[in-house]
Amino acid sequence: MLTGDQYLESLRDGRRLFVNGHSVPDVTTEPLLRGGAFAAAEGYDRYYQPGDDSFGPYFFIPTSADELREAQERQLHWDFPTISTSNGLLMVLTAASRMRAELPQYAERALAYFDDAKKRDIRIVQTITDAKGNRAMSPAKQDDPDLYVRIVDRLPDGIVIRGAKLHISSAAISHELLVMPTKRMKAGEEDYSVAAAVPVNSPGVRIINASFAPRPDLDPDFYPYSSRHIMTEGFVVFDDVFVPNERVFLAGELEHSATFAHSLGLWERLGSVGSYVRLADTLVGLAQLVAEANGLQKMSHIKDKISEMITYATLIRAAFEAAMHHSTFTPEGWASPDEMFTNAAKYHAAAQFSLMVRHLHDIAGGSVLTAPSMADLRNPETGPDLEKYMRTMDGVDAEYRMRLFHTIRDFTADSFGGWKHVTVIQAGGGLFAQKVVVANHYDMDEAKALALEVAGITPEGKVMSSLASQGPGSSPEFGAL
Amino acid sequence: MLTGDQYLESLRDGRRLFVNGHSVPDVTTEPLLRGGAFAAAEGYDRYYQPGDDSFGPYFFIPTSADELREAQERQLHWDFPTISTSNGLLMVLTAASRMRAELPQYAERALAYFDDAKKRDIRIVQTITDAKGNRAMSPAKQDDPDLYVRIVDRLPDGIVIRGAKLHISSAAISHELLVMPTKRMKAGEEDYSVAAAVPVNSPGVRIINASFAPRPDLDPDFYPYSSRHIMTEGFVVFDDVFVPNERVFLAGELEHSATFAHSLGLWERLGSVGSYVRLADTLVGLAQLVAEANGLQKMSHIKDKISEMITYATLIRAAFEAAMHHSTFTPEGWASPDEMFTNAAKYHAAAQFSLMVRHLHDIAGGSVLTAPSMADLRNPETGPDLEKYMRTMDGVDAEYRMRLFHTIRDFTADSFGGWKHVTVIQAGGGLFAQKVVVANHYDMDEAKALALEVAGITPEGKVMSSLASQGPGSSPEFGAL
Amino acid sequence: MLTGDQYLESLRDGRRLFVNGHSVPDVTTEPLLRGGAFAAAEGYDRYYQPGDDSFGPYFFIPTSADELREAQERQLHWDFPTISTSNGLLMVLTAASRMRAELPQYAERALAYFDDAKKRDIRIVQTITDAKGNRAMSPAKQDDPDLYVRIVDRLPDGIVIRGAKLHISSAAISHELLVMPTKRMKAGEEDYSVAAAVPVNSPGVRIINASFAPRPDLDPDFYPYSSRHIMTEGFVVFDDVFVPNERVFLAGELEHSATFAHSLGLWERLGSVGSYVRLADTLVGLAQLVAEANGLQKMSHIKDKISEMITYATLIRAAFEAAMHHSTFTPEGWASPDEMFTNAAKYHAAAQFSLMVRHLHDIAGGSVLTAPSMADLRNPETGPDLEKYMRTMDGVDAEYRMRLFHTIRDFTADSFGGWKHVTVIQAGGGLFAQKVVVANHYDMDEAKALALEVAGITPEGKVMSSLASQGPGSSPEFGAL
Amino acid sequence: MLTGDQYLESLRDGRRLFVNGHSVPDVTTEPLLRGGAFAAAEGYDRYYQPGDDSFGPYFFIPTSADELREAQERQLHWDFPTISTSNGLLMVLTAASRMRAELPQYAERALAYFDDAKKRDIRIVQTITDAKGNRAMSPAKQDDPDLYVRIVDRLPDGIVIRGAKLHISSAAISHELLVMPTKRMKAGEEDYSVAAAVPVNSPGVRIINASFAPRPDLDPDFYPYSSRHIMTEGFVVFDDVFVPNERVFLAGELEHSATFAHSLGLWERLGSVGSYVRLADTLVGLAQLVAEANGLQKMSHIKDKISEMITYATLIRAAFEAAMHHSTFTPEGWASPDEMFTNAAKYHAAAQFSLMVRHLHDIAGGSVLTAPSMADLRNPETGPDLEKYMRTMDGVDAEYRMRLFHTIRDFTADSFGGWKHVTVIQAGGGLFAQKVVVANHYDMDEAKALALEVAGITPEGKVMSSLASQGPGSSPEFGAL
Repeated sequence: MLTGDQYLESLRDGRRLFVNGHSVPDVTTEPLLRGGAFAAAEGYDRYYQPGDDSFGPYFFIPTSADELREAQERQLHWDFPTISTSNGLLMVLTAASRMRAELPQYAERALAYFDDAKKRDIRIVQTITDAKGNRAMSPAKQDDPDLYVRIVDRLPDGIVIRGAKLHISSAAISHELLVMPTKRMKAGEEDYSVAAAVPVNSPGVRIINASFAPRPDLDPDFYPYSSRHIMTEGFVVFDDVFVPNERVFLAGELEHSATFAHSLGLWERLGSVGSYVRLADTLVGLAQLVAEANGLQKMSHIKDKISEMITYATLIRAAFEAAMHHSTFTPEGWASPDEMFTNAAKYHAAAQFSLMVRHLHDIAGGSVLTAPSMADLRNPETGPDLEKYMRTMDGVDAEYRMRLFHTIRDFTADSFGGWKHVTVIQAGGGLFAQKVVVANHYDMDEAKALALEVAGITPEGKVMSSLASQGPGSSPEFGAL
Repeated sequence: MLTGDQYLESLRDGRRLFVNGHSVPDVTTEPLLRGGAFAAAEGYDRYYQPGDDSFGPYFFIPTSADELREAQERQLHWDFPTISTSNGLLMVLTAASRMRAELPQYAERALAYFDDAKKRDIRIVQTITDAKGNRAMSPAKQDDPDLYVRIVDRLPDGIVIRGAKLHISSAAISHELLVMPTKRMKAGEEDYSVAAAVPVNSPGVRIINASFAPRPDLDPDFYPYSSRHIMTEGFVVFDDVFVPNERVFLAGELEHSATFAHSLGLWERLGSVGSYVRLADTLVGLAQLVAEANGLQKMSHIKDKISEMITYATLIRAAFEAAMHHSTFTPEGWASPDEMFTNAAKYHAAAQFSLMVRHLHDIAGGSVLTAPSMADLRNPETGPDLEKYMRTMDGVDAEYRMRLFHTIRDFTADSFGGWKHVTVIQAGGGLFAQKVVVANHYDMDEAKALALEVAGITPEGKVMSSLASQGPGSSPEFGAL
Repeated sequence: MLTGDQYLESLRDGRRLFVNGHSVPDVTTEPLLRGGAFAAAEGYDRYYQPGDDSFGPYFFIPTSADELREAQERQLHWDFPTISTSNGLLMVLTAASRMRAELPQYAERALAYFDDAKKRDIRIVQTITDAKGNRAMSPAKQDDPDLYVRIVDRLPDGIVIRGAKLHISSAAISHELLVMPTKRMKAGEEDYSVAAAVPVNSPGVRIINASFAPRPDLDPDFYPYSSRHIMTEGFVVFDDVFVPNERVFLAGELEHSATFAHSLGLWERLGSVGSYVRLADTLVGLAQLVAEANGLQKMSHIKDKISEMITYATLIRAAFEAAMHHSTFTPEGWASPDEMFTNAAKYHAAAQFSLMVRHLHDIAGGSVLTAPSMADLRNPETGPDLEKYMRTMDGVDAEYRMRLFHTIRDFTADSFGGWKHVTVIQAGGGLFAQKVVVANHYDMDEAKALALEVAGITPEGKVMSSLASQGPGSSPEFGAL
Repeated sequence: MLTGDQYLESLRDGRRLFVNGHSVPDVTTEPLLRGGAFAAAEGYDRYYQPGDDSFGPYFFIPTSADELREAQERQLHWDFPTISTSNGLLMVLTAASRMRAELPQYAERALAYFDDAKKRDIRIVQTITDAKGNRAMSPAKQDDPDLYVRIVDRLPDGIVIRGAKLHISSAAISHELLVMPTKRMKAGEEDYSVAAAVPVNSPGVRIINASFAPRPDLDPDFYPYSSRHIMTEGFVVFDDVFVPNERVFLAGELEHSATFAHSLGLWERLGSVGSYVRLADTLVGLAQLVAEANGLQKMSHIKDKISEMITYATLIRAAFEAAMHHSTFTPEGWASPDEMFTNAAKYHAAAQFSLMVRHLHDIAGGSVLTAPSMADLRNPETGPDLEKYMRTMDGVDAEYRMRLFHTIRDFTADSFGGWKHVTVIQAGGGLFAQKVVVANHYDMDEAKALALEVAGITPEGKVMSSLASQGPGSSPEFGAL
């Protein structure tokens, strides 16, 4: 295993990084990016154990619903590259299991990759979203063929890929990039059906970074939450990058072009859902704290809004629990969450998030925006004014209440809040796509059978007669609804 | 156990029933009411086994989450009085368990009642909602003190009660009425804190019946569903009814005035939720069948609506599953569903139901209302016209499609549909009350703790500093959201 | 002009009508249909004036926003065939105005038709929706070419049409059918581009009727509203019907295939919107009356729901007013409502209707369904019980409150209510189509220009600089949002 | 009239300002605040005309619906202090008109104030929201009596006030503060019923400023919109401020304690609504531009979302138009917008705003957050990558598309966007309050009358009979709904 320092050292490997118009020779010294690296280093140190047989708990394969639940619980306390590594490798295993029958050589490579990654204790991110160009056209019909990542050359010992992958969180502070097709490819798009593991410092890889808040040295008084959290998003360019065969997991086979994306969806969304349960609970907590600080917690319409937020949190939690309880198992005995429940939770969390934030803002009031700064509270010329007028009652002083307002602004109505509004919708591919995934895993035949029963048509096609014309004993479904 | 015939015979016991302005000397011959009795009789026959040790599966006490799930699965196929009996007796047991410490004598009577009911194989309904009068006033402040059921006399061997209970489904075709307070009573309202079991034919009991569709002999062609289902609602008057002590479970003690209502809520709502899963699936099935019959199933906005209906069904199912999986257990080892998940499912089912029906109507089109009758299809003068113009493609002929339209109308846009619209909201006490129940079982302390963490306030009250000002290893929560 | 009796007599003209499997020799004696005829007859009598120069106010052409408003106000008090006649003829005029340049001969015929209809004082209904078959296929691609009405023969003096038109309200009690294409037709679909006026008793016309509540003699106690209102929907078959040239308004010209449908939409939707304002107000009134009857009108969450219903009513009213105030004028000086506002009102009324009914049901409580009948109130055995327990306070007695519950059930949760739920969505072509019509009349160029301004791009394509880098006087848009 | 320079000079008047913990000796040189001052100065210069009889158009009193519409149109192009001045003075006039009968001396002072402000060409802001303390307590019951602004002394020539007013936009760059009660005061709260005009530089006035984005020198590439707009919010302390009698408009009279707030609401909300029409149009424009840039504009579910946004914009516009068209007039002939329509527009804009932003984010995709900076586009090492992969098709190059993403982020998902999310809800007092105001101006009697008609109860209390039992001519309302 690596220590935090070894991890930071490993990032100085010649990788080509850029941010805000300049190149970044060393990510660990770049103010706009280093925060994430430090956090990941702390993650290494937390789990470090000496010895060749030691492995972090993020290389864990759950084999029961309970193990899956424990793994998800742990994940809530990890840094993003570690979460991504865990999900990415579970995705690799799931895909290997699904491909084993038709493409055994790729399945073997994938399994070997899991072991190798575990041994090297590396951090891995998934790269899936392509540049995509004109969304009305398929990959092969774009005017620039590189708008989806593709194989541009096939050599005896490997392949050469070209293209770009977007929205790659933490790419700059990870070791390897898992490349996979963004969707099912069709006949004629074989070169776009490519999956592989690519080291970040491979020749030809360039990462242009953005950050939801590219402002170093945030004041924790004004940004109580976002000053302690950061997310770096990478725009990853593959400029004719060579990948050796042993890291190629798909290279032209169409029948499994969507296997990686589907396998990833499974694991990534479950992780999202776990974090959304916590996010929803946090919104409830903020609403309740600010209602109490204002003396509003017993008003009927305030309680109504908070109850609605609680119901939102509870439905996400319910579907998260159901997804784990209804785990399915691969032939290898590996547990996977139920896809239908996972995606329903994901959709509900995303679709109703902005309404829940609206409730919070409605309860909290305008001071979310207009509360003076904590520096004004400490200024002897203005501090007494704020002490007097920002307190509301015994036990709710100005400092606590002002901090609450700044927290709500920072968490929901400033840069981080905006970032959250967008990511909660976009993670999982937009609301339309999320709903469709739920539908794809739904038992429609059973639903149709119930509908036919209501129509009075038996499975044999016989039409049922009315209750009134019957004698006793003829209505087996009475009261069913 | 009783046979169906014995059950029907047992209903001819002198009970005082009324409907549509006339008295009903024999419920088994009254066209407006007998349908429910026949259905219940069929339920008796289905489970009948001879012998003194035989009991119906509706007298079952689950002791694990799996047993609870099986019981709920079975319940979907029962008639209403049987469902009500099962839920009512589980309510009695739950209440007994909760009262045992403070009021052991009532707990004993309640347990004895369970055994006795089981032995006699009777059907029981809960009576909870009072007349209530002016909702802005508490029971004791009404201008007529009888607007909530109360004890008007206490005798050595029993009590005398007066008042009315409303919305009592299947009262006319059951054997006993479980009376309980509709809500927590306060000091001065001791006489309103009364729970008891009252035979339907007790002197002083009168039941005025309504039916959602008080029309006998419905044509199954026009009412494919509601011609096979009926629900009788009773307005039950207690005109100074004597209840012997052994059937009195509460008589003035305020601390347990809400225990029965809460215990009932637990079981009744779980049953509702199980039926709502099925109801939601049925709406999905109808939407998909009619979309396919019209050739619309691949249109993007149609798929979008059906996917939303599926997500609705899935979230209810998820919370139903979570409620059972997270069962709690009484000291006696009896399993109870989790209240928070049960009520969240209930609320979501109720709050979104009308929107889902709107989706179904939006997909189905105007023929839901305007489709000619099946008799017109059989009329040789008009049949060929309908055959020609109501079919849409090979495999979708006029008869099937017309039946589908009539089914959707009957199930969602006619008398039964209206009944469903109201009951889905009102069961469980209205939307506001349902949300509040979810909130009452939510872990608000945990939510507040998460909010304080976001505010950068540690459990010890220390304020956290920003990431940017830190060295490596200082941000344990990076990426948590 | 005709008197009511003359109108009833005119319906005995050999028309071929059917309902519930039997033929209807005389609509004025058929219990399932005559109600509408009687109501229309009353409309004739109300406006009757002797003399050749007398005309009903439904033959009025508004030439200002104020005249348009007055006409809409009047329309709220008319029977359906009269409303339909007024809208249909305004549609004919609008279409004539739009076609005049390219197809002057049809425009002339249409204008002449207006004058002739006025002279004969007839009642006219629009027939627009075709059978449609498989919705995934265009008219010409259906396996049966008759699934859209089409010209099957062209003769020197007229054309012959075949097909069916669905959802034709009041067809059985009107004099003429205005046939028009249901949508824009494409090359190869010339025979489907046909508009004409067809007498109901033309050889080959057959009308199969349905009624939302095909039950004669409804009890006004149980159906306080629907016993006084009825809507007959006709399934109209054109079995090779000959139409003489002077009644043909389009016969193969594709460029105006959608002109009639668009012109009709204009007038029909405005009328709908006027009635929805009234419908929304009625729901508010019912909610307030039942809240007051229950003593709930001051509870915060009840007020909140009623306020939301009021806002719903107010937004529909606002868009209705804006549509009339922003009237446009044809070259002839005829006023037309603004289409964007009309359709926005229509959409909002339809999309939110089921939620508003949910609010009403949530406020009203379960007695909407379970209130005993008025006959039980009059029965001396049960009347006193109901008098005692259905009253709530001084001023709210059992009779009034029970009638209120029955009214809410009848109006929103029984056959009529279901009919309303469907028609409010389907009138105007389904929610998706309604939104699209709003969008088609929206000034998207202006919206894009505003967006570019926000992007800091001037109309000349210049990028604007920041405020902070500027001196005084450089921010013309400060505070605009 | 003043020039821009004279205005800036007038702000150096000894006012006591603070921001971010320091005092601000000169607002025109403070980077965090001067932006607003410069913008207001530009407003002065735009309208400047020499001569004593010249007045800015913001001192205009509309006397017809058309004049009102023109004034609202102009207002869209003004800086905030100018808008506030116009609305504030119209409020003063409206309040004067309403108070004239009972309190003529105050009405006279108010009218004189209008003339004086016009002569001096000053800028005025309204100060209404108090500190409020514990919201569960009324002003007089707070543990600190100063938590609502109150009169602490009454002198022969004036009064002395103490307290604080919050959320005072542009207070630091205006000349005078219009103080008024935040709500109706009750018996015992006479000292809280106070209205007055107070110069910003009065002894005892201190303004602690906050800004939604207290970051000077924003990069217009990253903040295309917010770099050009700024809003300063003042926390205004009145530390025993003396107000001479001629500037006191209310001093203890309870019957008009709410008159100013209601009059202000009238004008402020109309202005908000005008800006929300524009805001809604802008969201539509951004959605359409980004859909087109991505090639998505023809996809059904994208069109559906944009159509819904258009309908949102159209309903706000409709109610705005209806509010002006239905103007009412004071005895003086001054036009006022209709309150019911104004508030319905306000509520709808606020309640649905977050959903519309969700639609925009859903359409735009993740690049809203992850698009690299424009500096990366200009960096020769990364520019070609971005040119290649951020373009989508001919006519949509990387620069344009990246700017679009940054605009959407800046406008809806970053500091400004968060500010907008909160202000759109809070302006007008929170969603609950807004709905209640609509309800207060609604014609409930008419709604109840319609409901009674549906119940079949005539105005005379007679119960109507059914259609079926009637002969011709008895159903005057057929088809009304």
